[in-house]
Formats: sequence, C-alpha cells, structure tokens
Amino acid sequence: MSDTTGAPSAFPSEVYAERLRRAQHQAAAAGLAGILITPGPDLQYLAGSRMTSFERLTCLVLPADRDPVIVVPRLEVAALRGSPIDELGIEMRPWVDGDDPYRLVGQTIGNNGRVAVADAMPALHLVPLSAQSSHPVELATPVLRELRMIKDDAEIAALRAAGEAIDRVHARIPEILIAGRTEAAVAADISAAIVEEGHTEAAFVIVGSGPNGADPHHEVSSRVIERGDVVVVDIGGPVPVGYFSDCTRTYSVGEPNNEATEKIGILEEAQRAAVAAVRPGATAGDIDAAARDHLAAHGLSDYFVHRTGHGIGLSVHEEPYILSGSNQTLRAGMAFSVEPGVYLPGKWGARIEDIVVVSDDGAVTLNNQPHGLTVLP
Amino acid sequence: MSDTTGAPSAFPSEVYAERLRRAQHQAAAAGLAGILITPGPDLQYLAGSRMTSFERLTCLVLPADRDPVIVVPRLEVAALRGSPIDELGIEMRPWVDGDDPYRLVGQTIGNNGRVAVADAMPALHLVPLSAQSSHPVELATPVLRELRMIKDDAEIAALRAAGEAIDRVHARIPEILIAGRTEAAVAADISAAIVEEGHTEAAFVIVGSGPNGADPHHEVSSRVIERGDVVVVDIGGPVPVGYFSDCTRTYSVGEPNNEATEKIGILEEAQRAAVAAVRPGATAGDIDAAARDHLAAHGLSDYFVHRTGHGIGLSVHEEPYILSGSNQTLRAGMAFSVEPGVYLPGKWGARIEDIVVVSDDGAVTLNNQPHGLTVLP
Repeated sequence: MSDTTGAPSAFPSEVYAERLRRAQHQAAAAGLAGILITPGPDLQYLAGSRMTSFERLTCLVLPADRDPVIVVPRLEVAALRGSPIDELGIEMRPWVDGDDPYRLVGQTIGNNGRVAVADAMPALHLVPLSAQSSHPVELATPVLRELRMIKDDAEIAALRAAGEAIDRVHARIPEILIAGRTEAAVAADISAAIVEEGHTEAAFVIVGSGPNGADPHHEVSSRVIERGDVVVVDIGGPVPVGYFSDCTRTYSVGEPNNEATEKIGILEEAQRAAVAAVRPGATAGDIDAAARDHLAAHGLSDYFVHRTGHGIGLSVHEEPYILSGSNQTLRAGMAFSVEPGVYLPGKWGARIEDIVVVSDDGAVTLNNQPHGLTVLP
Repeated sequence: MSDTTGAPSAFPSEVYAERLRRAQHQAAAAGLAGILITPGPDLQYLAGSRMTSFERLTCLVLPADRDPVIVVPRLEVAALRGSPIDELGIEMRPWVDGDDPYRLVGQTIGNNGRVAVADAMPALHLVPLSAQSSHPVELATPVLRELRMIKDDAEIAALRAAGEAIDRVHARIPEILIAGRTEAAVAADISAAIVEEGHTEAAFVIVGSGPNGADPHHEVSSRVIERGDVVVVDIGGPVPVGYFSDCTRTYSVGEPNNEATEKIGILEEAQRAAVAAVRPGATAGDIDAAARDHLAAHGLSDYFVHRTGHGIGLSVHEEPYILSGSNQTLRAGMAFSVEPGVYLPGKWGARIEDIVVVSDDGAVTLNNQPHGLTVLP
C-alpha cells in the first residue's frame, strides 16, 4: 500500500513560495535554526502537499537562512511531480530503506541551533530527530500560528464554499431526521448528503437525540428518535481544496416542551451576542464571555460545559481557541467557530454553531441556516 | 465537533487486562518508570479504545509498578462508559479547558525515571510532556513491539476475516476493471466494494494502469484504461474489530504481451519462494532474500525497488518489517505482507501481495485469489 495521497494543490505555487518565505522570516525572528515539517496541515499550508505518511520519514527542512530541502523516501519522489514542491524547485534528498533519514535531516539543518517541529509530527519521528539536536526540540506553532491564523482571500473563499456546502446539508435535515429512525440511520444519510453537497468526506457526524444530546461529545447510537426529542446535529468535513466546514443546529422532532423552547431561545441569544462581540481588537476571551455571561444571566452557566469555539482552516480545530480568559487578540482574517451549548443531563442538549471570519466591520458569518430551535413536523 | 470515536471493543476486557499487565512487565524489565499512550493503535491494542483525539490530551499512564491511570478531558469521560477502560476500573483523572494536563501526567508518572511514549503521540503533546521529565523521552516500541508482533488466536481470526473480505473484492475486479474507464472510476467502484464486503472503510485503493503501475506508490489518476494494459490493484481497509486487510493482484486487460507474461511469471515464482521461506527461526532478511534472489537470478533485481513486506494488525504497517538484511527472527503468530514487485519505468508494473501468518508449520496465507497475472476479457 501507499504512504502518499497525491492530490492537486489548492493554490498557485507562488502562494506557497510566499508562505515559506514568511515562515523562514518568523523562524529567524524567533532565533530558530529552522523548522521541520512532516506531513499534516502545516505541510499542506506551507507547501500545498497533502502527503500522508506512516513509518517512512518525509520531512520538509526549512532553515531560517537557507533554501528549503525535502527529505523524502525515494518511493515517494514520483508522487511529488507537478506539486508545488516540484514547481518551486525545492531540493529533494531521497532516501531508501536501510538509510538513516534522521541523520540526513540533522546534516541538513545542523545540530547547533534550536529547531522547531510541526504539531502533527509523531513521536516515531520526533524522538530520533530530537537525538540529532543539541537543544530540546520546540513546537513550531508559535512561529506558524501567526501565519495560519490569518486567512487570505482565497482561504476565506474556501471556507465560505465549505460553509455553503454544509448549509445545504442542514437544509436537507427535515427529510432525514424523522421519528422512528435510529441516530445511526440518520447519521448515515447525513454522511451521504455531506459528500453529495461537495465535501470529500464526512469527517464527523454527531446526532445526539434526547438525553444523548446532553453529552456534548456523543456521536451516534442505535437509539430510536422519538417524537418530542430535541436533537443536536453537528456536522462537517473538508471541501476539495482541504478547508473544513463545521456547523451545528438543534432540531425538535415535533413540538418541543416549554422548557426546551425557553432555554434554547436564551442559547440563541447567547450565540448571537458572541458573534456580535467579534471585531478586530477584541480578545478571544471577550467572545467567550459574551456567550457565557448571557447564559449566566439566565441561570444557565452550569449547563455550558465547554469553550465557546476553535479556529478552523486546514484543520478542524486550530488556533485561535475561543477560551474563557484568553488574551488572544482577534485580527481581520481569523476564522473560528462560535458554538455555545446548553446540556441538561438526562434530558437533552442544544448547541448552535457558526463559523465566522473577522473583518474590519465585525463578524462575517459563513453559516446561514436559521439559528433557533428548528421544529420538524 | 467531537474528539472521540466511540466504538465497541474487539475483545473481552480480560484480554486488555492481560495486555496491560504484560506491557507493565516489559516496561519494568526495560528499567522504565512507565509508558504514556495517547490515542492510536497502541491504545487500541492495550485498552481496546478507538478514541481519536485532536488538541486535547488523552493519555493512558501505565507506570511499571502501579495501577494505570487515564488522563482525559472531562468532555470525553462519557465516551469511555462501557469501554474496557471503564470495565477494568482504570482510574480516570479528568481535566477541563484551562487546566495543565501535561503537569497532571507528570505528577502521575513522576519525573525521576525514564519514560517511553507511543509512536503515534504527536509533537503537540510530546514536547510539553518531555518538559515534565528529567530524562530524554524514549519510544515505547521496543517494549510494545514484542507484544504487538505476536498475534493471538482472536487477532489471527480477525486478520483472516479481513483477508477473506479483501479476497471477495478481488473476485469482483473483473466486473469493475474494464477498458475505457478511468483509474479513478475503477477505484471508486472498488472503494464501494471494499465497504460492501465487510470493511468499515476503504483505507487505500491503488489502481496503477500501464506506465502508472511502474510507480509503486501511484494511487489513481484520470488515465483511461486501455486494452493491453497491465494493472496493479493494491487495496485494503479495516474490518469492524479494527484489523486491516492489504492485498495486491496484477491484472491484464485483454491479452498481455510476451514480456509481461514472462516477467510476471517470474515475479509469481519469487513471491511463492518468499512465502515458502517463512518459518519460525528464519529471519525477516531471509524472506526478503528469497524473493530478491529469485528476481536477481532472472535479471530483474533492478526492477524490484522496495522492501518485501511489512507487519500488519491494528496498523496497516507495523513490525516486523521484511527488509533486506534484517536479523529480526520470525516467531509463530507474526503476521506480515509478502509483496515483491517488478516495475518497468514507462511500461508497466506488477506486484503480488499476500498477508501471511507464521505457524509452526510455516506460512499460513490469508489471501487466496489466484496469484499470477489475471487476464480479463
């Protein structure tokens, strides 16, 4: 079987050349000798590569002050043809089974400076790479987060397309979410709809009906959906250029009881307040507080048991995290979820989630299906 | 969205209790204070957990001389109910957004001894965990490989079921692999068949037609399959208990030319010779040599550009690797692929791959579709 997933890159190679230059600049400013990037979202961001890898090391070596090099199994070289790595003329250092690829990386980056690595690098590679360095290895996130957090126009267009695709799936929920079906059957139909509406896969499908919805991380079960159930539907996946959708709406199968109507109405206000608080210069903590304080003012703070949101892009969860107390300043181009929830143990749960992009005028919301409790016939 | 994939465990919880005890014993024998296991195949092996995780740390802490503990986001605790971790009464140490889970792990394992980590642990977690330890972190593979390499009867039964499932897919290739279709269209139908025949997903599908087959790691393309093409089909995925299939056959669409017939005949002999060399006490290098020497004797050594095989189980690629010169001794219960290939640049490629299990009587082959070049009408 293969270690590589070939796929077209999302953007012209000049985009990646500029990102690589900026990453080198940031690495130099941080006093690093360079950064080491194995396959994953950082490699996709910096070099347009969707390679995946198992036990054989592929590693982009990005020195702060010299041209990048990619250390790659000879078997994978053909898969790089026509990729931005090839188009940009990045030097390839192929290795074959029996060679020591970690030594090759060490020779390329040198062993006297501080080296940082991609978040996704597995221990399998990180432990032997660490042995090549005289300093403790660091995470590259402080260097890369500034780049990856601020989306450019093409990235925002990709997130917008993802948002529209998942909105079309939520628009189809009334045909799918029907009393008498199991959560699992509903989820299977939603998965198919996610792909039909333009995603390359259904990365996650949560259908939390009745008491199952009160566990924010319940996925699906064989529980049969009953009339009167409140149902949380949290779904998403990547579109072909690699950017993710992620959108939650809460449904009522038949008429809801008064308690659900009332509390989910307050949740809708809390979500709207958090979105309204988004502007350049606000902190992530401000956004979290806007939702949390509104719920607290209505006695619901004990029922909101998670953070308000997470950044999104080539990863489903990335910086900036919208956490209580976070001092992370919001800037135009940041994209993240705003998803407060209310969870009543043993009864039901509700969550309302949009992806928003920070603009100079405030939040641009990428999900536009109705936000309140949607009552299905 | 969710950080966890809940799924039933494959085996009774006593199986995991015994594996945990053996891993602790191996850790103690290696002089380790303990091992740290984040979600991935090692956690699935040791504790039957199919959790996946993103940025929030879940970590099974397995001290060499005390009871295990799992550090887990409070949000994920519900997903562990009914799992072997729950059934075995493993102590849970939940944490919430804002806590320092790495410190919690450090307090649990102590910071004076040597600690080893699962191969799959991402740098995101490994770098902060390393900072809790006064010794360089090591890989747990030397401790765990002895356990994971030797499959028990239930694991072999799972691999056998996976082999039968992928054999049924190969049996359907004549309906799918037809001149005039693109590799991508053929691959899409094969993916569907992989799921229909009992896998939970199509983890990889290589359809390498004509010159594309000469790249061992080509996956699929928009190339239209022509009459006379030699086509490599390398496919597999996990069955519900989590164990993988992986099987390659080579097809000819219409009558092949004499060169292909002759050389693929020699490849078939080489693959058979390698399987015949499998027995307890032989080395992995012996198996590689059996295939490689047969190809060399017929002037084909330059066309066999990769190792002969890889172990398989809860990972598609794992120990033992069947590498040239490897001194790894084979023992009853090991499972691995035997997959020599012949690649003629610009013309075609061929590969024949079976999964075999080492028994006291030699290799038991888990893939039983015809091995030679299969000529399709």
